[in-house]
Amino acid sequence: MFDIDKKRTLMNLNLAIEEGLVDKDIIPILEKINSLKDYYTTSSCIGRIGIMVIPKDKNPKLHSKWLGKWHNYPTFDELKSCLKNEKGYIIFVMNSPILHIACRNIESAKKLLESAIHNGLKASSIKSITNRRVIVEILTTYKVDAPIGEDEIFIDDNYLKFLLDYSIMKLKRARELLFKWADKVVE
Amino acid sequence: MFDIDKKRTLMNLNLAIEEGLVDKDIIPILEKINSLKDYYTTSSCIGRIGIMVIPKDKNPKLHSKWLGKWHNYPTFDELKSCLKNEKGYIIFVMNSPILHIACRNIESAKKLLESAIHNGLKASSIKSITNRRVIVEILTTYKVDAPIGEDEIFIDDNYLKFLLDYSIMKLKRARELLFKWADKVVE
Repeated sequence: MFDIDKKRTLMNLNLAIEEGLVDKDIIPILEKINSLKDYYTTSSCIGRIGIMVIPKDKNPKLHSKWLGKWHNYPTFDELKSCLKNEKGYIIFVMNSPILHIACRNIESAKKLLESAIHNGLKASSIKSITNRRVIVEILTTYKVDAPIGEDEIFIDDNYLKFLLDYSIMKLKRARELLFKWADKVVE
Repeated sequence: MFDIDKKRTLMNLNLAIEEGLVDKDIIPILEKINSLKDYYTTSSCIGRIGIMVIPKDKNPKLHSKWLGKWHNYPTFDELKSCLKNEKGYIIFVMNSPILHIACRNIESAKKLLESAIHNGLKASSIKSITNRRVIVEILTTYKVDAPIGEDEIFIDDNYLKFLLDYSIMKLKRARELLFKWADKVVE
């Protein structure tokens, strides 16, 4: 069951890579994890910086949207140029890199989780357990969630630049942690 | 083993409650969980709003400190009066309510985790698995982590007031979710 699921998931991953839908920088990590017999990746993000709008009256799940988002590090001008007054809460966001990894069983999940936490990826956890697989989420504690406006932007350029510089610094550190851990992961 | 651990943990919890070390509002939830035979709480926080200073050169784990923190909802004046220029990154924080619950086995942990996620506590997860117990973390996705200064405060009163109002609103919603879920938890 696990091996059939893994095969199908990796076929879809390869298609997604060919279509350019997967962050380039994270591909070596996916390849490393997927080379191990007890694990395969089900989703991934190398981390991102962006500006999100969350509506106040509608379902945020359906109606939230990005004014801009970057998996590379945006310049101040790129960030600034996406900013505009929008109905709803306007949030500056830096999301940590994240990986979801299917594990063959509890034991292999436990081993992966412990290695992640031991290597500084301290927000990692087990997100679900079924007969087919155990899903481990690999996550750092680095994050920024700063509301910067409500219907209009409340912050000035200097503060926006500070938010951006701070977030780039933290995202770089989070990525370093992820890569260091991935180097060490073994069967 | 589980029952002996539970007994000792609840004795310590009762001492902590007597000493006023446990958030009053969360005690009914702890009592509810601890009345179930397969679970006991190991730590809890009803959520909080505060201002934290993270040093740049020293170990943040050892040298971070709070300029102020509140488990109730602070007024603007209370918040404002704790603000001062400090060496390091100055972060406005709203932390979601959080519970750590020891579960007798994987099955009981899985049941608890699924009920939490199903009831909107979507950042919940399993944090560790040992022979003695499985630890489930109960957590909402509501959070604010907004850097507001570096060695000095960069934001003005209006923006601080907005951060506070937004955080109070989100913390209230997070607590509602926690209480609704706790009402429904059964053996």
